[in-house]
Amino acid sequence: MISVALLGFGVIGSGTAEVLTQNKSLIAARLGDTIEIKYILDLRDFPDSPFANLVVHDIAPILADDEVSVVVEMMGGLHPAYDFSRAALEAGKHVVTSNKAVVAAFGEELLALAEERGLRYLFEASVGGGIPIIRPLCTDLAPCDITGIEGILNGTTNYILTRMAESGASFADALAEAQALGYAERDPSADVDGWDTARKICILSALATGKIPTLEQIYVEGITRVTTADIAHAKQAGYAIRLIGTAELVGDQPRVMVCPRWVHASSPLATINDVFNGILVRSDFLGDVMFYGRGAGSLPTASAVVADILDIAGGSPCKPPRWTAAADGELASHDSYVCRRYLCFSAAQGWRDAVCAALGEVEYLDTEGCEVALLTAPMREDEAKAAIDTLAAAGITLLSSMRLIKSTN
Amino acid sequence: MISVALLGFGVIGSGTAEVLTQNKSLIAARLGDTIEIKYILDLRDFPDSPFANLVVHDIAPILADDEVSVVVEMMGGLHPAYDFSRAALEAGKHVVTSNKAVVAAFGEELLALAEERGLRYLFEASVGGGIPIIRPLCTDLAPCDITGIEGILNGTTNYILTRMAESGASFADALAEAQALGYAERDPSADVDGWDTARKICILSALATGKIPTLEQIYVEGITRVTTADIAHAKQAGYAIRLIGTAELVGDQPRVMVCPRWVHASSPLATINDVFNGILVRSDFLGDVMFYGRGAGSLPTASAVVADILDIAGGSPCKPPRWTAAADGELASHDSYVCRRYLCFSAAQGWRDAVCAALGEVEYLDTEGCEVALLTAPMREDEAKAAIDTLAAAGITLLSSMRLIKSTN
Repeated sequence: MISVALLGFGVIGSGTAEVLTQNKSLIAARLGDTIEIKYILDLRDFPDSPFANLVVHDIAPILADDEVSVVVEMMGGLHPAYDFSRAALEAGKHVVTSNKAVVAAFGEELLALAEERGLRYLFEASVGGGIPIIRPLCTDLAPCDITGIEGILNGTTNYILTRMAESGASFADALAEAQALGYAERDPSADVDGWDTARKICILSALATGKIPTLEQIYVEGITRVTTADIAHAKQAGYAIRLIGTAELVGDQPRVMVCPRWVHASSPLATINDVFNGILVRSDFLGDVMFYGRGAGSLPTASAVVADILDIAGGSPCKPPRWTAAADGELASHDSYVCRRYLCFSAAQGWRDAVCAALGEVEYLDTEGCEVALLTAPMREDEAKAAIDTLAAAGITLLSSMRLIKSTN
Repeated sequence: MISVALLGFGVIGSGTAEVLTQNKSLIAARLGDTIEIKYILDLRDFPDSPFANLVVHDIAPILADDEVSVVVEMMGGLHPAYDFSRAALEAGKHVVTSNKAVVAAFGEELLALAEERGLRYLFEASVGGGIPIIRPLCTDLAPCDITGIEGILNGTTNYILTRMAESGASFADALAEAQALGYAERDPSADVDGWDTARKICILSALATGKIPTLEQIYVEGITRVTTADIAHAKQAGYAIRLIGTAELVGDQPRVMVCPRWVHASSPLATINDVFNGILVRSDFLGDVMFYGRGAGSLPTASAVVADILDIAGGSPCKPPRWTAAADGELASHDSYVCRRYLCFSAAQGWRDAVCAALGEVEYLDTEGCEVALLTAPMREDEAKAAIDTLAAAGITLLSSMRLIKSTN
């Protein structure tokens, strides 16, 4: 029997208890052993829960109990989640977490501590909810040199962008709809400004490249400025707009970015709709592989947590690779990033000559109305910025600018 | 140092040698140990290969060499591939294989033998080429009850169907193109008649349900009868046609089928184009997850082989679940299978009344030309057969009949 302690009994904690309970016999048959929840740590009491008698308010008895071999941290936030995780490892317990903030900020330290003690620190649920991604990166892709990752990593923004395309709703209306359905928080900034995606792509970058950047070191742009006109232009040209986190190696330097991008209909990322997530991994031998599924939600995320518990209980020695913080000089420059771009601007007098001078050959999508929409040839970030400045100097006001993704099916 | 012997130096065997050689230092860093190819068994010599001096023509020295801990079978065919795999396990060596025929026919026996000897028998490369699917099914999905699998498992047929849709080519012309590109064999029947997909979905069924059917026990239909008219009707209605292997549990009885199906554009399976494969797994807690990538090819498949070698070398104890042969009575009946259907027939006089009587309410796609195309409501197989017989009796000749997939995004 494997005894576990759950830290936090919110959405994911209660889901984990449900998965372990509902599939108890199936799990026991597969594992050849049983998993018992011995403690649930939470500030609250849950008198009506079937797990009420397991609830404690203090970490001390959990750390002191030698029967507890796995501590599962699902509290959210940095503290005391980090402190409890560290204390659990120091007390000789394996740690499983769904907490991307702790993994991004303290993963380097906690993985080192776990290795030092012969323990495991696993975090499959911290990225992509229930989608298998961390374990496949560490096992199935172990023979390969990973050269790039493109991920739709946030269900809230994907729902909003899907709704905007389906119904023609504005960003504000689609956000309000997402909030009404419980897909978006009342303060949606962590999702719509791209920070949730940024934390997740930083963790994937760490696993793929060995270097983790901070949020301050990377380019992050959310979806709040995506307009109904942008969506219509994209749709007409055979593209979807999706918030994409990218991590790639430029030589041996990682480059990590988050921004809304045009995804061609032929890409497997283009049919990822609603709250679903998809993560495309590019490598030397495997080419493109993609992992798709529910990137959030109580039971899918809990399923990933339980898979980590089973991995530990089964005695697997497989460890996520270690990483270190990226110094500024270890990251590839943003200026040299190259991709095609969508630009939309007011059709001021003389725009055609100005575009020709600033951008060279382009693919026009719409030149009929009072807005001009086009796709540029591949260009560097600094070239794009200079071209936009040139257009502005010619009296042409930019309304939208978005990058295309690189991958194609 | 881990010494391995490669059995077979064809497309996958030579790819495996290339992956192990090219990424030698990366693999050594991740594993903390090195992998050495000690023998390559093949009937042929390869005097110009850098591995020429490793080639042997007899299995005996490999079996007798205690330094060899992993034997990698990539010979294809049932014999002597099975016999050598069995002999390797009996000699105390782990076995990795890419050979779906051996896994489907002898997996039950070889997994039992491996377990008995404390060894591992791994076969990630036998399904979906380089796509991680077997290991995720056995690890990430271990907490879940898998209720269904829908897979595009054959790159050749997917290429043909993609080309038919893109260029309007006939099946014969698209096949000829695939043959010219080396995607299809000169005798393409194993691919286009569905047998390759059938073997793979049988293995996935075994992993998900614990029961493996024989090819004779399941419904298998290839793509040779898919017409340009079918493709045009599907495209116009927002569907793609794909050869899909399905395995699902009906109560506790597996039902396994292979047939061309209509896949709605909103499904993640719909953007799987060209030689790519995609496998959608449905379960109680994770909902739908999908794995996408290159389902064949030397290096992608070799990458999956090497991932299995690394898994063994790393000392993971994780085992694929065992399965047993399905008795006829243990399989769900084909007659009770329910789905929507596409039907196309000649517009003989009185067809509208006959359709109304035989099929009830339908969604017409095309009633203008000399062919009528429609989608039925969900109906059982036996009901569909009876309805088609009724139409035939009314003088209406069926030109095409295809099932829709059940999954939606």
